[in-house]
Amino acid sequence: MEIVSDPQDMQAVALDWRKLGRRIAFVPTMGYFHDGHLSLMRYGREQGDRLVVSLFVNPAQFGPHEDLDRYPRALERDRTLAQETGVDVLYVPATTDMYPPGYQTYVTVEELSQPLCGASRPGHFRGVATVVLKLFNQVLPHLAVFGEKDYQQLVVIKRMVADLNVPVEVVGRPIVREADGLAMSSRNTYLNPEERRSALCLIKALTHARDRAAAGETEANRILAEVKQIITATPLTRLDYAMVVDPDTLQAVETIRGAARLAVAAWVGGTRLIDNMLLEVN
Amino acid sequence: MEIVSDPQDMQAVALDWRKLGRRIAFVPTMGYFHDGHLSLMRYGREQGDRLVVSLFVNPAQFGPHEDLDRYPRALERDRTLAQETGVDVLYVPATTDMYPPGYQTYVTVEELSQPLCGASRPGHFRGVATVVLKLFNQVLPHLAVFGEKDYQQLVVIKRMVADLNVPVEVVGRPIVREADGLAMSSRNTYLNPEERRSALCLIKALTHARDRAAAGETEANRILAEVKQIITATPLTRLDYAMVVDPDTLQAVETIRGAARLAVAAWVGGTRLIDNMLLEVN
Repeated sequence: MEIVSDPQDMQAVALDWRKLGRRIAFVPTMGYFHDGHLSLMRYGREQGDRLVVSLFVNPAQFGPHEDLDRYPRALERDRTLAQETGVDVLYVPATTDMYPPGYQTYVTVEELSQPLCGASRPGHFRGVATVVLKLFNQVLPHLAVFGEKDYQQLVVIKRMVADLNVPVEVVGRPIVREADGLAMSSRNTYLNPEERRSALCLIKALTHARDRAAAGETEANRILAEVKQIITATPLTRLDYAMVVDPDTLQAVETIRGAARLAVAAWVGGTRLIDNMLLEVN
Repeated sequence: MEIVSDPQDMQAVALDWRKLGRRIAFVPTMGYFHDGHLSLMRYGREQGDRLVVSLFVNPAQFGPHEDLDRYPRALERDRTLAQETGVDVLYVPATTDMYPPGYQTYVTVEELSQPLCGASRPGHFRGVATVVLKLFNQVLPHLAVFGEKDYQQLVVIKRMVADLNVPVEVVGRPIVREADGLAMSSRNTYLNPEERRSALCLIKALTHARDRAAAGETEANRILAEVKQIITATPLTRLDYAMVVDPDTLQAVETIRGAARLAVAAWVGGTRLIDNMLLEVN
């Protein structure tokens, strides 16, 4: 496995591979790898001749009072895990190379960036769209793999790629969970044991909602009332949002017809967690 | 010469050429070709194995009260001229394919879009940056050629390409002028004979400024006072702006050291014209 840090070097490697007809798979990450990341890498490994994983904690997607400075980092461990997973290039650009002095170009996916996490984190998806487009232009992948835990991110990126005609296939892959159901996240490391137990209210609420829909409940408001009840009844938690949305437009759904996505964000102690679930009414 | 209108077809043609190792040159235009356009095409023809010219009057870069609807069009003539100039593909996408329902992604080059034409035409450079990035992703050129008449546009696009790591080389080419000095523009067709004579105040003011700088005048304000005097003393004209700016940052320059760019916009009758000139103090 090669470690590349210069954006121009990365682009040159990618252009060389393309000249040789290699299919490039790409997994962008902020590092601190868990099985969720590794599942994306394994999928990319299967789908591409070459696999690039980027590791970049992107300042542009953090708000001024968010956890940029304490976001967990473990480069040596990540390097070992990436190597063991068959990554060809671990791409670790420096912030000063990604956003040099005078940097001023941003990509906005307007409507899809507004609801859900966009309402709680102004500017977040502008930062995400911008860095992902930059990374795509540096890595020049045929295929890019994202986790469905950041469901709104996946929808925003798919829309950006379609709107800007970016020649990359974007694939979303299922959420990977701990044995007790907590969605894997680098931020889970912030939780103390008591908070870790409280955090299970998210998957408890989501599976309850999934079961209610599967049993024929079509009214989003009824399901949401129960979801909110489960989360707010749990110690140490504070609900940020719970919404049933159209899987493509992210607009609130009142009556579930076929499939909808339930998206939830909640604070557990000082840690903000997100999770989501497909609701299907049969 | 082939005419392509579907964005996916265009991208497929470009990907095929790239697989064969062809170097793609690209000239984006809004059509109604004049010698300015043709000079860019001839340059592209020399520099690339394949030459694509796009013809798209981009609604996203026109304000609500601007001349989108009456912008001059002459597709058959343009087609003949492109063919005669050795264009391989004339790419003429439909507005509904460029901006289908639900379209919502925009690229903003923040500081560079503010002054000069950006102040008179809010949103203009957002529309320009967005459509150029889309066209780059559709045509996948190695090299893209722009005229220096739209000087701010060139600077904005160079910045976007650098900031977003777009793998395209952007080249600016000199302004092509009529025999009497008027910068060629598709909008010159709006001018009646009297306005056409008045429009010469722009090149008169610019050459005066160039000569004053060449003779050692370094104070931008003195030069600008004379430039404004020449333009406002001309019948039928109304000055929009005249500024001496840094060639890269577009920030106003007080004292010219080495080189600066004088940029001018003026209304002549109902037609807004722009022009610019390199000022060099020796």
